[in-house]
Amino acid sequence: MSVTAVVARDSGRRVQAAGDWPGARLFNDLTSMLLEPCLYDLVVIASPSSLHAEHANAVSVAGKPFVLDKPIATTAAEARRVVAAASASGTPFTVFHNRRWDPEQLTLKALLDRGDLGKVHTFERHWERWRPKPQQRWKENDVVGGGLLLDLGPHLVDSATQLFGPVVSVYAETRTLSTPTEDDVFLVLHHAAPGTRPGPVPGRAAAADVLFGVEPPAKGVVSRLWAGSLVGAPGPRTRVLGDGGAYLVHSFEADASPFDVLDDDQPEGTHGWLTRGRERTAVPQPRGGHGDFYTAVAEWLAGEAEVPVDPADAVRTAEVLDAARVSAKEGRLVDV
Amino acid sequence: MSVTAVVARDSGRRVQAAGDWPGARLFNDLTSMLLEPCLYDLVVIASPSSLHAEHANAVSVAGKPFVLDKPIATTAAEARRVVAAASASGTPFTVFHNRRWDPEQLTLKALLDRGDLGKVHTFERHWERWRPKPQQRWKENDVVGGGLLLDLGPHLVDSATQLFGPVVSVYAETRTLSTPTEDDVFLVLHHAAPGTRPGPVPGRAAAADVLFGVEPPAKGVVSRLWAGSLVGAPGPRTRVLGDGGAYLVHSFEADASPFDVLDDDQPEGTHGWLTRGRERTAVPQPRGGHGDFYTAVAEWLAGEAEVPVDPADAVRTAEVLDAARVSAKEGRLVDV
Repeated sequence: MSVTAVVARDSGRRVQAAGDWPGARLFNDLTSMLLEPCLYDLVVIASPSSLHAEHANAVSVAGKPFVLDKPIATTAAEARRVVAAASASGTPFTVFHNRRWDPEQLTLKALLDRGDLGKVHTFERHWERWRPKPQQRWKENDVVGGGLLLDLGPHLVDSATQLFGPVVSVYAETRTLSTPTEDDVFLVLHHAAPGTRPGPVPGRAAAADVLFGVEPPAKGVVSRLWAGSLVGAPGPRTRVLGDGGAYLVHSFEADASPFDVLDDDQPEGTHGWLTRGRERTAVPQPRGGHGDFYTAVAEWLAGEAEVPVDPADAVRTAEVLDAARVSAKEGRLVDV
Repeated sequence: MSVTAVVARDSGRRVQAAGDWPGARLFNDLTSMLLEPCLYDLVVIASPSSLHAEHANAVSVAGKPFVLDKPIATTAAEARRVVAAASASGTPFTVFHNRRWDPEQLTLKALLDRGDLGKVHTFERHWERWRPKPQQRWKENDVVGGGLLLDLGPHLVDSATQLFGPVVSVYAETRTLSTPTEDDVFLVLHHAAPGTRPGPVPGRAAAADVLFGVEPPAKGVVSRLWAGSLVGAPGPRTRVLGDGGAYLVHSFEADASPFDVLDDDQPEGTHGWLTRGRERTAVPQPRGGHGDFYTAVAEWLAGEAEVPVDPADAVRTAEVLDAARVSAKEGRLVDV
C-alpha cells in the first residue's frame, strides 16, 4: 500500500504531508479529493471525531471503500446513520480498532484460550497519563467530539467486548479536572454470562434462571476501565482476575508509569505476567501486531478475507458509550 | 494494661487463652464474667460480628467501659441501638478502628497536610488476597455477620472518611465467588466537597450552587475501594491521585503481592512513594502505630483525653455500608 493523496485543511499540515509522502497529491478539502477517484483505492478517515460521520457519509456517496477512525460517530444514533448510508450506497468500510492487535491484547487472548486464569471474574484496564499541563488540541477542547470518553473509551470498550463478550449494562463516572472536555473517565461494564444472550442486569434474577436454573444465575465478567490525564501513578495497565490466577501488565507504550520497572527482567518474546500472590511467570507473546490491521485491510479489499473490524461492533461500542453518558448523568447502572 | 479475664466459649480457645495470659480468669460466657466486675476496668468485645450488638448491650447494662470491634453491628439501625443503649446507661465505649494508626494512613495524612499531592481527586485502596481455597470460619460462612463488606468494609470506609470527609453517596457491587458470603466487594464513595455540608449526589447541581455559585459546583474526592479473596494480583494497595502527583503504596502487611518488589529499595523511615509518571520519591513516615490505640484508650479511661474513636463515626460507617447493600442490589448510586 502507498499514500497517493492527502487532504489537509491546514497549510502547515500540507507542508508536513508533502514531506512525509513526496509522491502524494495534496488537497485542501475532502470534496476536491473525492472528485479524483482514480487516484486511490481506499480512503482513510482520520479527521477530528466530530467530523467522522460527515466525512464517512461523503465517502459513502462517492462509493470508495474506507477505513474510519474510532469513534465512527459521536453518538450511537449517528453511528447507525453512518452504517445505513454506507449500506445504502453499497460502500464497504471498516473501523480502525487497531488496539485489537496490541501485543497485550493478543497475549491475553491466547492466555484466556489456554485457560490458565481459570474462570475470570474481573478485567481492569487503565489508560492513564500524567499530563498536569493539558495539550491544546481539539481532543482536549472540542466538547462535541473531544474528551477521553470518545477518544480512549472506544478502544477500552471494544477491547473488553472482544475478550469478554457483549455488554449488558454500564455504570460510569466522568469528570472534567483540567480541560473543558472530560479528562477523567471511569467505566464499569457488565458482560453477558458466557453461553447466555445479553439479558437483565446482574443482581436481578432473569426469569429464565428462576424457571430453569437450580444453580444461581451465571454471572459474566465485570470490566472496570479508566481513562485519565491527571494521574501521577498511571497503571497498572491491565489486571485480569480469575480463580486460576491473574494476568498483569504494568505499563503501556510511552505512558510513563512507576510500575515500568517491574518489567526490567521481562524475558524476550513475552508480554505481561501470570501472577498468584507473590509468584509470577512471564507470559509468551504470540506473533502479530499493529501492522496486521492493514494487511487484513488489503486482503479484505482483494476479496480474500472478511472485514477486519465489523462496523456493527463500532455501533455497539457507541451504544455502550451513550449508556455511559446517561449513567454518569443519572448515577445508575444503565442497560445497553 | 494487662489481660485479667477472658471469655471463650470453645474449650480449645480456653486452653489457648490460658497459655497466652497465665494470670487471667477464664469464663465460658459473657454473663458469668459480667458478674465479676471487680476483675477488670475495661471490656474488649472481639466476638463474631453478628454478636457485637448483643454483647455491647450486655456490657452497657453492666456499666463497664468497653472497646467494641468493628463493625459495631451488622446494620446501621442496630448500630444506633448499640449507641443508644450505652448512652442510656452512661457507659462509655469506643470502637476498634485500629487502621487509623496504620503506617500508610499516618504517612498519607501527613502528606495531605503538607499539600504535596495538590488538589486530590481520587483515592483508591485494595484490600485483596490470593486465597483460592477459602478459610473455614464464621467470617467466610456466616451470612449475617460474615463477608468482606462487614469485615474489611468498615476499615476501608472509615479510612476514606477520616482522610476525605463525609460520604454523600455510594455505588457498590458485591459478589460471592468462592464462599457463601460475599468475598468480592467494590465500593465507590463520593465525599462531600471540602467546605460544604454533605448534600446532593455529584453530577446533580445543588440548589445552593445554582443560586450562589458562579463557579461550577465544587466536587469532593471519589474513593474506590476493593476487598477480595480471589485476587491473583493483589494491589497496588493504595493510590491517591491529585493535580500535584500521586501517593502509591504497593503492598500491605502479609498479603503477598506481585508489587512487593517495588519496595525493595525503600529507605528506612519512609512508607510509600510520591510519584509523577516515572519519577518517584520515598515519603517520610511519621512516628506512631497500632500500639497508640491502646495508649489513647488508657488516657481516655483516665479522663485525660477524648475518646480515641467516636462511636458516632462507626454509626456513619454502618450507614455507608447499608447504602452499599442497597446500591449493590438496585444498581444505582445511593445517597447516605
